[in-house]
Amino acid sequence: MADTVLFEFLHTEMVKELWAPHLEPGRVGWKMSLSVLEGLGFRVGQALAERLPQETLAFREELDVLKFLCRDLWVAVFRKQMDGLRTNHQGTYVLQDHSFPLLVPMGSGPQYLEEAPKFLAFTCGLLCGALSTLGFQSQVTASVATLPACKFQVVIQKS
Amino acid sequence: MADTVLFEFLHTEMVKELWAPHLEPGRVGWKMSLSVLEGLGFRVGQALAERLPQETLAFREELDVLKFLCRDLWVAVFRKQMDGLRTNHQGTYVLQDHSFPLLVPMGSGPQYLEEAPKFLAFTCGLLCGALSTLGFQSQVTASVATLPACKFQVVIQKS
Repeated sequence: MADTVLFEFLHTEMVKELWAPHLEPGRVGWKMSLSVLEGLGFRVGQALAERLPQETLAFREELDVLKFLCRDLWVAVFRKQMDGLRTNHQGTYVLQDHSFPLLVPMGSGPQYLEEAPKFLAFTCGLLCGALSTLGFQSQVTASVATLPACKFQVVIQKS
Repeated sequence: MADTVLFEFLHTEMVKELWAPHLEPGRVGWKMSLSVLEGLGFRVGQALAERLPQETLAFREELDVLKFLCRDLWVAVFRKQMDGLRTNHQGTYVLQDHSFPLLVPMGSGPQYLEEAPKFLAFTCGLLCGALSTLGFQSQVTASVATLPACKFQVVIQKS
């Protein structure tokens, strides 16, 4: 019922409120807004991962951690599993969601494509924050070819 | 598990990000920040109430609507029922939560009292927005005597 959509409504309104690329000219304002949303997602991802049961925190294999994000974290946040996970076995992972819940409300026409990044920034941060708590530094980016499908690319930073 | 706290984490981070009383001097900045959070809550409350089953929208007695907020809406958002509901039977209602989930993380010492309003503004808006969808214009304010307990006062505007 209502609680399953609460997060999505709150996310939508939060993006509206925090999206302020006009405060700085050109690409700077755009990047600053994305960065605010990513930072917020990062802190929520960290906090969520800290609440995971201890046995979860025991695995340390990269691939296991990524599988865990695709399954358990995605279900906890989006009530569905990620649809696909690919890797080059060298620290780069591509997580595919064929119908990403935060993109569904915005319609699927190509005219919406340029709006997509602001609805993906929080989740890039969320993945990065959860990985950070689980012991992995990463860079996470998102791309969209056809709405509402999207891909998150996770590159694990080797220390 | 994680999903039960997702809303609370997101709310906390959103408040941190949107709380910017320094942008305007004195009480103006404080009120502007509260107003932004209330507005955001209002829109989420409206959207949540629109998702309620049709039979829910059929009741039109004020007291039934308030009882519904205390029970169903509160459970959907905070996973608990409101602890008390009082009315003067003249359109004023006091909703009491003895341990309001969004105040719990901030500690219970009196030194935190002045921080409380920013953690209540979203929820004041949420109640007001849900009431609006259900056909009632209202003013909602919140007060705290002892953390983490709080009271929401709802005054229904007669048309």
